[in-house]
Amino acid sequence: MTKVVFLGFGNVNSHLLNALKNSSEVSVKQVFNRNYVKMISPFEKIPFTDEISKIADADVYIIGIPDDAISTFSESLLFQNKLVVHTSGGAALNVLSSKNRRGVFYPLQTFSKQREIDFEQIPICIEAENSNDLETLQKLGKTISKNVAEISSEKRAKLHLAAVFVNNFVNHLYEIGSEILNEDDLPFDLLKPLIAETASKIKTLSPEEAQTGPAKRNDKKTIEKHLHLLADSPYTKLYELFTEQLSQKYGKKL
Amino acid sequence: MTKVVFLGFGNVNSHLLNALKNSSEVSVKQVFNRNYVKMISPFEKIPFTDEISKIADADVYIIGIPDDAISTFSESLLFQNKLVVHTSGGAALNVLSSKNRRGVFYPLQTFSKQREIDFEQIPICIEAENSNDLETLQKLGKTISKNVAEISSEKRAKLHLAAVFVNNFVNHLYEIGSEILNEDDLPFDLLKPLIAETASKIKTLSPEEAQTGPAKRNDKKTIEKHLHLLADSPYTKLYELFTEQLSQKYGKKL
Repeated sequence: MTKVVFLGFGNVNSHLLNALKNSSEVSVKQVFNRNYVKMISPFEKIPFTDEISKIADADVYIIGIPDDAISTFSESLLFQNKLVVHTSGGAALNVLSSKNRRGVFYPLQTFSKQREIDFEQIPICIEAENSNDLETLQKLGKTISKNVAEISSEKRAKLHLAAVFVNNFVNHLYEIGSEILNEDDLPFDLLKPLIAETASKIKTLSPEEAQTGPAKRNDKKTIEKHLHLLADSPYTKLYELFTEQLSQKYGKKL
Repeated sequence: MTKVVFLGFGNVNSHLLNALKNSSEVSVKQVFNRNYVKMISPFEKIPFTDEISKIADADVYIIGIPDDAISTFSESLLFQNKLVVHTSGGAALNVLSSKNRRGVFYPLQTFSKQREIDFEQIPICIEAENSNDLETLQKLGKTISKNVAEISSEKRAKLHLAAVFVNNFVNHLYEIGSEILNEDDLPFDLLKPLIAETASKIKTLSPEEAQTGPAKRNDKKTIEKHLHLLADSPYTKLYELFTEQLSQKYGKKL
């Protein structure tokens, strides 16, 4: 039985708690947060504290707070030589205070309060300083996911960068699509099957094989028409940059 | 029974044929293409011609060729006053020759040879010049999709522009993610659950509600780290532009 305490209770930790609490091999001992957090009903049995001196004993402490607060917070913990991990894609292992044994437990996914998450397919990227701790994290990860991978801080940084492109930036393109349709009173729903298929395609095709459209086929007329439609929209620059990169990639000068 | 002839046999028409040939209300009379196309086995029974003078009689002629060829090709047809539609998102109805009754039958989806497509959820955007033809296209669309919508050429142009953002450009971001991982010998598979969830989220959340990440939360340190990792990559500009737009959108100056 792995005893776990959650330090901080934002999107990542609340989703992790939700997943780990159901495992028969994990005992969630406590949630610590600076402000009181209302635990929704299934969590009610889990003790809560907002006092750093009252943090319970555990095998693994999981920090889920903003990246730039991890260092100071981990230094402020009153215990030593315990396994303390953070859940960040963007922060290195060594931002954690060295007074405890350090590790990383990074679920590579986008978390929103309103969405339930099935962890089974989510890569859990783990890192630790010794093989015992690595094994503990491996075991913990496997209780919720089929895909636990040891990834160094350096590689995790690249992974996080790539994640920003395929998640945050992709989502911004959805937003732009939605705005363009709104202007003409067209429902965003019209784009949803296309969005689903675009994502679904790359399960079996490489992004290169999956690519289509005016920039790839060097369809200058359509590109000009689109730029004309965009006029002085803030998205013109983005359209031009993508089109330039796509036409370079597919070997066709515009 | 609606008699249909396909004019051109690229990605769109071959997928449309595949969908329409199974309908009991549709009879696919012929495929015309300038070059011989090998019909894969299920299509073998459908007559083929490469001679414009031998195009069969039909209720609807569906043109699936590059946008800039539609005008000349439709002018070269030897019959008149028939319902001739194109399947393009980017071309107006009036690029078609007026010697036939003109229409549009645009399935809003990305088509690749290697992918089977379920048309049921795909919006079919139709347009015609009179109510009879509109009804014919409505009926034809409904044999394969639950979602047939009358959309003007003007609105369809905006829809097509939005589609380029949420499909071609999104797919290019997948490509960038894949390249970033490749550099560090990380498998693209690691990103696939994130890509799936990013697309899945906006079935129930607006893109605005779904947004997360360093640019939204004005996490300057992470942004700087990412720009440092990108160094002189061609994708730096794209990263900066997205980050600028996201931070403006979410009201946080960088």
